[in-house]
Amino acid sequence: MLIPVIMSGGAGTRLWPVSRRAHPKPFMRLADNETLMEKTLARALAVTGANTVLTVTSRDYYFLTRDEYLKKCGEDINYDFILEPFGRNTAPAIALAALRVQSQFGGQTKMLVMPADHLIADLDAFKAAVDTAIELADEGNLVTFGIDPTHAETGYGYLRQGAELGFKNSFQVAEFVEKPKQEKAEEYLSSGDYRWNSGMFMFRVNDILQALASNSPDVYNSAMDVWAALDPEGEPLELPAEEFTHCPSISIDYAVMEQADNCVMVSGDFGWSDIGSWKAIGELYESDEAGNRIRGKGILIDSRNCFIQSDEGRMVAAIGVNNLVIIDTGDAVLVSDTEHSQEVKQVVSQLNLQDHESAIFHKTVHRPWGSFTILEDATDCKVKRLTVKPGQVLSLQRHQQRSEHWTVVEGVAKVRVGDDEFLLKANQSTYIPANTMHRLENPGAEDVHLIEVQTGGYFGEDDIERFEDVYGRT
Amino acid sequence: MLIPVIMSGGAGTRLWPVSRRAHPKPFMRLADNETLMEKTLARALAVTGANTVLTVTSRDYYFLTRDEYLKKCGEDINYDFILEPFGRNTAPAIALAALRVQSQFGGQTKMLVMPADHLIADLDAFKAAVDTAIELADEGNLVTFGIDPTHAETGYGYLRQGAELGFKNSFQVAEFVEKPKQEKAEEYLSSGDYRWNSGMFMFRVNDILQALASNSPDVYNSAMDVWAALDPEGEPLELPAEEFTHCPSISIDYAVMEQADNCVMVSGDFGWSDIGSWKAIGELYESDEAGNRIRGKGILIDSRNCFIQSDEGRMVAAIGVNNLVIIDTGDAVLVSDTEHSQEVKQVVSQLNLQDHESAIFHKTVHRPWGSFTILEDATDCKVKRLTVKPGQVLSLQRHQQRSEHWTVVEGVAKVRVGDDEFLLKANQSTYIPANTMHRLENPGAEDVHLIEVQTGGYFGEDDIERFEDVYGRT
Repeated sequence: MLIPVIMSGGAGTRLWPVSRRAHPKPFMRLADNETLMEKTLARALAVTGANTVLTVTSRDYYFLTRDEYLKKCGEDINYDFILEPFGRNTAPAIALAALRVQSQFGGQTKMLVMPADHLIADLDAFKAAVDTAIELADEGNLVTFGIDPTHAETGYGYLRQGAELGFKNSFQVAEFVEKPKQEKAEEYLSSGDYRWNSGMFMFRVNDILQALASNSPDVYNSAMDVWAALDPEGEPLELPAEEFTHCPSISIDYAVMEQADNCVMVSGDFGWSDIGSWKAIGELYESDEAGNRIRGKGILIDSRNCFIQSDEGRMVAAIGVNNLVIIDTGDAVLVSDTEHSQEVKQVVSQLNLQDHESAIFHKTVHRPWGSFTILEDATDCKVKRLTVKPGQVLSLQRHQQRSEHWTVVEGVAKVRVGDDEFLLKANQSTYIPANTMHRLENPGAEDVHLIEVQTGGYFGEDDIERFEDVYGRT
Repeated sequence: MLIPVIMSGGAGTRLWPVSRRAHPKPFMRLADNETLMEKTLARALAVTGANTVLTVTSRDYYFLTRDEYLKKCGEDINYDFILEPFGRNTAPAIALAALRVQSQFGGQTKMLVMPADHLIADLDAFKAAVDTAIELADEGNLVTFGIDPTHAETGYGYLRQGAELGFKNSFQVAEFVEKPKQEKAEEYLSSGDYRWNSGMFMFRVNDILQALASNSPDVYNSAMDVWAALDPEGEPLELPAEEFTHCPSISIDYAVMEQADNCVMVSGDFGWSDIGSWKAIGELYESDEAGNRIRGKGILIDSRNCFIQSDEGRMVAAIGVNNLVIIDTGDAVLVSDTEHSQEVKQVVSQLNLQDHESAIFHKTVHRPWGSFTILEDATDCKVKRLTVKPGQVLSLQRHQQRSEHWTVVEGVAKVRVGDDEFLLKANQSTYIPANTMHRLENPGAEDVHLIEVQTGGYFGEDDIERFEDVYGRT
């Protein structure tokens, strides 16, 4: 038995301004309008044939992830979740995933660990590698997936191959190597002995737990403490912060793979990319004769080898420039030399230092019930467009400082204001005075779209008193 | 007597995305938050001591120009206007301005012609040049202002100096020279005989009319026809389109100055700039050690000699780039190599070909009664923020296809809906069904701010039936 485990952790700061803490890289949409996460889910199910998928992610992303999954693969799959209160790198996450799979499917069950934010272009080749990995894992090995390098990349770690094993493209791992400098990377490439470390793994749950216990007892023991403290009936499973905070923040490579003597690799070239920079994303698009790529609205004059992405309808014009990526969102724009696109992290650090909203939030913010987009954020009013999904209901709430004026523009909302409850149809509006309990619900089968005009002196998200909330946010 | 004449014509397409047809270059705000037009007005009054200023502009800009003037110089100045239905270059405009000044102040009156969108840093030096020009004009000369060149500029025309005259820094004009190629420009610079042609002039109205009659009778006669056809009591003076369309579209340089034998120049270095490109605007700002200049919100990493302007709160980040101008507005961004910034025109041409709104309108559109900003423009609704100035009133109007929901967020509005008329205060809202006459007015002393949510199927500006309009737009 084989359960895919999707690890959906990092913030993807190198892909700002599209990837942000509240809506990180796995939720980014590519040219085909699919998110990386949707692609990962479909791939996980296709190569394993499983009908259960376990996802380890932050609790902040639970509703959004579940929505993406349901949209992509429907209701017939069992979407199991482990929700982290904060990140602790991959070793504790994999330990807890292994404990979950062990408790549900037994210790001989294999896990295929996949990051949620990678791309694999050649699914058949990947499937073949997974099949080999299954056989290696069944022999008690801890299997990594190595990628045949196509260039001297300095952004990845490498695996040095050891003795060949009895299966196709499979080797002992002689050494795990950190991200190299350019010169080293070129050496690795020309030697033919090195593979990129993809961060994907396959092992039986008993084997990885045993390897953790022997090689990193602190990770193992702290994970066991978390496991003992959590509510096993929780749906989704929530990791208790008090215990989880004691887990060392360490990668599975450091904690286990570099030390275990049963670590092997399956290698291959299956069009893998961690799309870790705007350069890599640009390369997914066809270029014109001048080497330019445009997604969205762009005009290029006397320019070469540029990539423009403008997703929110804004016009981007470039003149007399070469080798630039220009990424435009509703509230921010990035202009970077293609070869410097790894440095986007530094921008995000500066934004965090400045406490600038664009480090974390987009103008559109996702909520369990749907989403809102900020249309105006002024001193005298705040205007939002709300989208409420069918069957969803916002919390029963009250604001101290602001009144709200709602105008439905699509769908039919059920509205409670004080003790009154009534339906509000498109082109109808209502008024919620400050200090009045109210609730918004979509009882229909289509999205409700509504414009909310807030008036008053203060419009912060912290002026919400929640009384009842179906999503457990009171 | 000396009347300043401000010519406010061109669209300033080289300064897109800030300068657009509906809000062109003279209305651009510089670092000190003043518009070019405000600066030109103040300069015109300072150097002439006049209390009348005549402005020739498009009728589209009348209200906005008047508002800028009143804000800058108050009610004590007589702001006279000639409104063009469309542009016909400078010769017809100057001819009609001369006829206007002649009719009001007599033929011996001098005009100081100044474009509305230039900068002059050294007002004292300019005043001295104007004083010299007065004496030259009183002798019957047509005076141009030549600027001592500081570099081999290819973007300006040049004046070659002839014989010295009896006044300081004044010469015959030996030749008018078109914008030169780089090599020629360098020759001109090193010879010391050439000045930049600033497009400013001084002459007595009888002299310029006589010069037009002898050198360009077609301009003269067609301008006389326009003059005969217009309503001289009009306030402002509106040029009749039917006659004005017969005026040749030609500059005063071509029509008169290059041919007349009484053409002279006053030269000087008074910190003049036509700020005809983003490069020139960037140079108005202090740079940091890396040569970077930021107006608004910007982060620069590993970048040199860049100019960022972001006026509407959006964050601009740049990495690993040099010599770029990055200009961000609410709905568009320009990224240009500094030395290519003259090519912005080509972007505007392409936008016009695509019929793209950003060639013409900003998200904020000015109206005689105030302004509106488009917050959302979707298929199911359009949301605007309206600002109505004190004492102003929108037209009595009706829409076929859309209903409107108004929420006042600041001030007190007087609202008519159907036959009802009532006051609407902050935090109050009202509903205007489709096909209902309505009117919005600000009877108070402070601006009224209002959020308008339009619902229905069509939201174009052409679905406005106007019944009464104090600005003559019915």
